[in-house]
Amino acid sequence: MMQNTDAPVLLERADGIATLTLNRPKALNALSEEMLECLQAALDQLSGDRSVKVVILRGQGAHFCAGHNLKEMSAQRQDVDGGQSYFNTLFATCSKMMLCITQLPQPVIAEVKGIATAAGCQLVATCDLAIASDTATFATSGVNIGLFCSTPMVALSRNVARKQAMEMLLLGEFQTAAHAERIGLINRVVPEDMLSQATQDMARKIASKAPVAIKIGKEAFYKQAEMDLASAYAYTGEVMAQNMMARDTERGIEAFLQKAPIPAWQED
Amino acid sequence: MMQNTDAPVLLERADGIATLTLNRPKALNALSEEMLECLQAALDQLSGDRSVKVVILRGQGAHFCAGHNLKEMSAQRQDVDGGQSYFNTLFATCSKMMLCITQLPQPVIAEVKGIATAAGCQLVATCDLAIASDTATFATSGVNIGLFCSTPMVALSRNVARKQAMEMLLLGEFQTAAHAERIGLINRVVPEDMLSQATQDMARKIASKAPVAIKIGKEAFYKQAEMDLASAYAYTGEVMAQNMMARDTERGIEAFLQKAPIPAWQED
Amino acid sequence: MMQNTDAPVLLERADGIATLTLNRPKALNALSEEMLECLQAALDQLSGDRSVKVVILRGQGAHFCAGHNLKEMSAQRQDVDGGQSYFNTLFATCSKMMLCITQLPQPVIAEVKGIATAAGCQLVATCDLAIASDTATFATSGVNIGLFCSTPMVALSRNVARKQAMEMLLLGEFQTAAHAERIGLINRVVPEDMLSQATQDMARKIASKAPVAIKIGKEAFYKQAEMDLASAYAYTGEVMAQNMMARDTERGIEAFLQKAPIPAWQED
Repeated sequence: MMQNTDAPVLLERADGIATLTLNRPKALNALSEEMLECLQAALDQLSGDRSVKVVILRGQGAHFCAGHNLKEMSAQRQDVDGGQSYFNTLFATCSKMMLCITQLPQPVIAEVKGIATAAGCQLVATCDLAIASDTATFATSGVNIGLFCSTPMVALSRNVARKQAMEMLLLGEFQTAAHAERIGLINRVVPEDMLSQATQDMARKIASKAPVAIKIGKEAFYKQAEMDLASAYAYTGEVMAQNMMARDTERGIEAFLQKAPIPAWQED
Repeated sequence: MMQNTDAPVLLERADGIATLTLNRPKALNALSEEMLECLQAALDQLSGDRSVKVVILRGQGAHFCAGHNLKEMSAQRQDVDGGQSYFNTLFATCSKMMLCITQLPQPVIAEVKGIATAAGCQLVATCDLAIASDTATFATSGVNIGLFCSTPMVALSRNVARKQAMEMLLLGEFQTAAHAERIGLINRVVPEDMLSQATQDMARKIASKAPVAIKIGKEAFYKQAEMDLASAYAYTGEVMAQNMMARDTERGIEAFLQKAPIPAWQED
Repeated sequence: MMQNTDAPVLLERADGIATLTLNRPKALNALSEEMLECLQAALDQLSGDRSVKVVILRGQGAHFCAGHNLKEMSAQRQDVDGGQSYFNTLFATCSKMMLCITQLPQPVIAEVKGIATAAGCQLVATCDLAIASDTATFATSGVNIGLFCSTPMVALSRNVARKQAMEMLLLGEFQTAAHAERIGLINRVVPEDMLSQATQDMARKIASKAPVAIKIGKEAFYKQAEMDLASAYAYTGEVMAQNMMARDTERGIEAFLQKAPIPAWQED
């Protein structure tokens, strides 16, 4: 597929892996209106693309993402309501995009280098998995300029223990990748020159699993997370029984029992 | 008590400590129908046994537990519905057993060596405490054969931060005991030749506490975990006042205030 | 302001930082009725004091806080109901105070040295942030005398992973500051002679932020924590739009965009 290399978001597909690249490096890949729109369109496209098994989200250039585009936002203060309805719409649009990452059938891996701040840090927290360069830094820094990172906090506080989340939110300081790994915000840290390889390796492993199992499992993960224990078991028990009925699952288990190689999956 | 040493689950009692041993080492102590039934029966028995203060759950032989018995499950695909109603019943039975561990009045310590995979890893996550040999390994590996570990995920994701849980579920890789400790899945790691001693030590410490306090506390732990903050305080405030009224509690506090030795507890 | 230096709780204010000192060192700063009453009164006072941007909570003498005053509690066993209604009221009073810390507009930092046990450990868990001396120790030790730390558990289990919380609650052992940091109960550990400085540094950083952002953010943190994901986003999206409308926020963002120094905040 031909692609406009000037587009705000680049979408490449290879071997079942889709790579989404935030492509406004001069603007630190900020989530401008245009960027949010393109990211949402790409997610909508991927959601129905059964050839894609896993998604990598990365930034073009030196950085991952610096959060919202404050210049664009400030311009809306000229509106008759001082921008309030614009801001409401903007945050709703951004939150919808974040929820779509969680609801996407395919797992999403954040590949992080440089800075991941504010809504950029939220993107990392929202992805299902994250690998970072050892020079990457993470911050919910809005508090430093008077704008508390309230929406990023939703994702951050569902990944990281309470006091560690509060420290990032109240102090707004940059945290190292090592600290981010320790508190659970990311899965692992690698040297920058191995970042792309490490993400590809993880993506390939996920792409090699039965798509039916991955799709069922990711959806169930977020649903059961909001249930009480007994309801979560009632729900996931049915999910597993349903998973057992898939043809690929039957073939996978048969191969395992016969100590045969796992067969190529036939269902998308 | 005489015991059939060929039983799928061995139950021993000594000094207030009950030890449940999964006893199908050749089958890696898989949770077959028979094993689930015997484990449920043992839990039901322990639940009302006021002489037992704490329970240790371990596996006979080299391993803890390898999850469900896939061979037994696959045989049910011959049913007219392809096994679906059987699978639904099986996962409901297994989930009921897991919930019973949480609801048991006595704390349950998992003593883990060898592999703890799929529903075996779920057992570890479900127990109140866990100690592992430094050679133990943990995986939610169902994804590798097309069956996402959806019910194990319920317990895993209530112990471990989101990205670390997702990594185990989506990649299905074996994790070391050191990693399991780091992410919170287990309490501590010891050399294999000290595993039994370490578990006994922990069990003895718990068995030495006032049973009334342990019973009240464990029940309240899981109940308050599903409440909002204000409701949790309203509930546990009443629990503490009730705990204060126990005769053993009164005696324990009096001894403490008089710097006397803690007395032998008189209530079961 | 002149202050009675014999008061159970000392309240000092300087440079936007209020310091609350539990001032019964001989009683290990236990939460007696008098202490709870004074602490509640101080919190009520601070809640409406817009000159205070952040609060430090510390203990006079060698220790932070040893929990409830058991001697005072035991005396109430002479009541006609054996003390039960007194105990109910006491735990409700204490829980109300804990909730007030969470609901206070200003962030609260626990500065911990010596022991923080039972309701003292709960205080640490309840504060938004915590720094401890490397010789501080933490325990929910009620279980050792027959009184399970059920109300402390509410705060502990919302900070710390399940098995690590259970271990503290069931075994009642003293944990080092290093362990407390590892499991997420506190933010950081410093040598004892640097404790006061480290807390002051953290407090000053928070006091330098726009009060409107801090107040909005802290309130939103605990509210969204009890919502499902979609509701949390709907709520915090509105919170951020409201935050954008604050005059200080507008000024902060303008300065940032113009690479100018962040201006002095004008709103309390």
